[in-house]
Amino acid sequence: MGKQSPTLALVGATGAVGTVMIDIINGRESVPWGEIRLIASPRSAGKKITVRGEELTVIALSPEAFDGVDVAMFDVPDEVSAEWAPIAAERGAVAVDNSGAFRMDDDVPLVVPEVNSDKVRERPRGIIANPNCTTLSMMAALGALHREFGLTELVVASYQAASGAGQPGIDRLQAELAAVSGKDLGAKAGDVRAALEAAGLPLSDSPFAGTPLALNVVPAAGSYKGDGWFSEELKVRNESRKILGIPDLKVSATCVRVPVVTTHSLAVHATFAREVTVEAAHKVFAAQPSIVLVDDPEKGEFPSPAEVVGGDPTYVGRVRQALDFPNTLDFFVCGDNLRKGAALNTYEIAEQLAPEFS
Amino acid sequence: MGKQSPTLALVGATGAVGTVMIDIINGRESVPWGEIRLIASPRSAGKKITVRGEELTVIALSPEAFDGVDVAMFDVPDEVSAEWAPIAAERGAVAVDNSGAFRMDDDVPLVVPEVNSDKVRERPRGIIANPNCTTLSMMAALGALHREFGLTELVVASYQAASGAGQPGIDRLQAELAAVSGKDLGAKAGDVRAALEAAGLPLSDSPFAGTPLALNVVPAAGSYKGDGWFSEELKVRNESRKILGIPDLKVSATCVRVPVVTTHSLAVHATFAREVTVEAAHKVFAAQPSIVLVDDPEKGEFPSPAEVVGGDPTYVGRVRQALDFPNTLDFFVCGDNLRKGAALNTYEIAEQLAPEFS
Repeated sequence: MGKQSPTLALVGATGAVGTVMIDIINGRESVPWGEIRLIASPRSAGKKITVRGEELTVIALSPEAFDGVDVAMFDVPDEVSAEWAPIAAERGAVAVDNSGAFRMDDDVPLVVPEVNSDKVRERPRGIIANPNCTTLSMMAALGALHREFGLTELVVASYQAASGAGQPGIDRLQAELAAVSGKDLGAKAGDVRAALEAAGLPLSDSPFAGTPLALNVVPAAGSYKGDGWFSEELKVRNESRKILGIPDLKVSATCVRVPVVTTHSLAVHATFAREVTVEAAHKVFAAQPSIVLVDDPEKGEFPSPAEVVGGDPTYVGRVRQALDFPNTLDFFVCGDNLRKGAALNTYEIAEQLAPEFS
Repeated sequence: MGKQSPTLALVGATGAVGTVMIDIINGRESVPWGEIRLIASPRSAGKKITVRGEELTVIALSPEAFDGVDVAMFDVPDEVSAEWAPIAAERGAVAVDNSGAFRMDDDVPLVVPEVNSDKVRERPRGIIANPNCTTLSMMAALGALHREFGLTELVVASYQAASGAGQPGIDRLQAELAAVSGKDLGAKAGDVRAALEAAGLPLSDSPFAGTPLALNVVPAAGSYKGDGWFSEELKVRNESRKILGIPDLKVSATCVRVPVVTTHSLAVHATFAREVTVEAAHKVFAAQPSIVLVDDPEKGEFPSPAEVVGGDPTYVGRVRQALDFPNTLDFFVCGDNLRKGAALNTYEIAEQLAPEFS
């Protein structure tokens, strides 16, 4: 455990993404870290968590917590990252941040290792950002297609899981499903709402825009940003442009929450500068180690969240040539929003940084 | 009850759509019909159903059942309509058919009263078709916009309810939700599938492409038609072109089943020949009696299935100008697939025919 092996810190170790992060670290065949340090709010300090066979004690977030840390991964709300990632950087760590606080800053790279790993070295503030989970769920697939065919336009509709809103989102969906289960609901406006309120689940407490998620879909994800757009939809546009390096990429997104616990899905309509066929796209996807192609609809083979959740890859299927749009593919993509969509991508960036500190 | 008042028949009176049809007839302030005749399979014959205060006995489907009928509405599977609508027409009735059997026939009009009511008179075979519920859910909105701005391109992703697969679809979703409720599922691939199989709900029995619908979304609606496309997606394209009278309309659709009991939703990305603004679109929607505009996202006002189900109108919201596509709107539309999406539109066509027989 000498200083040849770098020190990794995980800030937000006890949250929904932090928990998945520890699963990922525990599942790795080997890790490049000497010390792994778990950091959380003072409320969670003292908690014991086993990481790679060693029982670690969670320590409270403080400036000193970053002393000696080489890479600090942040899985915390925007405002916590905004305050603490610069403190970690000042103390000499590279902060890899999974919040929205720094993603669109010009001096912070926004990295998906399969797409733009070269950007990790351009980090004048000592901060690297991890994309939003919705964008990230389709980035490996779009990055691979872009390299081959030149992406020009993107129309996407999302089917986003409750865990995109963290543990409160998961808890809320499960409580709602229990409240509606066994009842003959869904034929009259407001009957789901009434059942939830009767079960002590007022919609004012919901993280889903004050709208039932059980037996429903909610066309409002993130916060309202004006001109009709919600934050998730603008993130899909702005982050896709930055990650892919296409500042004038045309993007329209509609982001919709669905009653799925974990795994985001997207219906993608993508137009390219060059001719594209299903066969050529299949070849591109097959050559990308982080993509699993599940695409034999005649045999009932296509990706769906319940069948792919918990895995690291992006699952792609339903690939077809748009009948009326030249150089355009329609396809369906599923990715675990807590893994590749959050913890895994953050950890892959951290792994890529490790050799710098060895 | 003289022959001045026409006779209406309802074929498939005991099915999911037939049941909603009777609700609609019972809810009308007045009806133009003298006799209303309920027809179903021999298995359901003899059943008593109260229609407008009168107890009617369901009679078995037979050629004679259509004697004296002026308008016969069919809410039955494709193969039953294919056989029996022509028999009803031969016996002198106008068949208004809600199946897919005749929709794309050149000599059968495909009618949405708000969009192309003039077509009801062009019925050389005595058959008028009612569109597929997915297409129909957005037709009032698109028809109104098309008249004003000239629709040229359409990219849609659907969020389709279980009842689009009829009563077996509703029963399946409710059984699945009961089987997963209260269990901590959704974090591992296949755990929903395993829970359903353990609960005696093998996926081979599901009407949803052999895939769980509880805690999931299923990107496969209808039957597989080759080249990557499912029937629902091709219906959206072909029926939209026919109803709107735009044979070269560019359309790409992705149809996805979601765990909602009733009400289809669509994320629509629509491009027009002429300039369009949110304000102008709002005006068009507000002027259409069958559309309810729910569009103040800052106040949490947008349509969602659980909040609009059971109503006749099409609900439209989240209207916004695409940021990067000229003359293009993105919006979200919800419509009760059993009402406007099926029974209501069929009944509106029948109502329009009634004066011919008075």
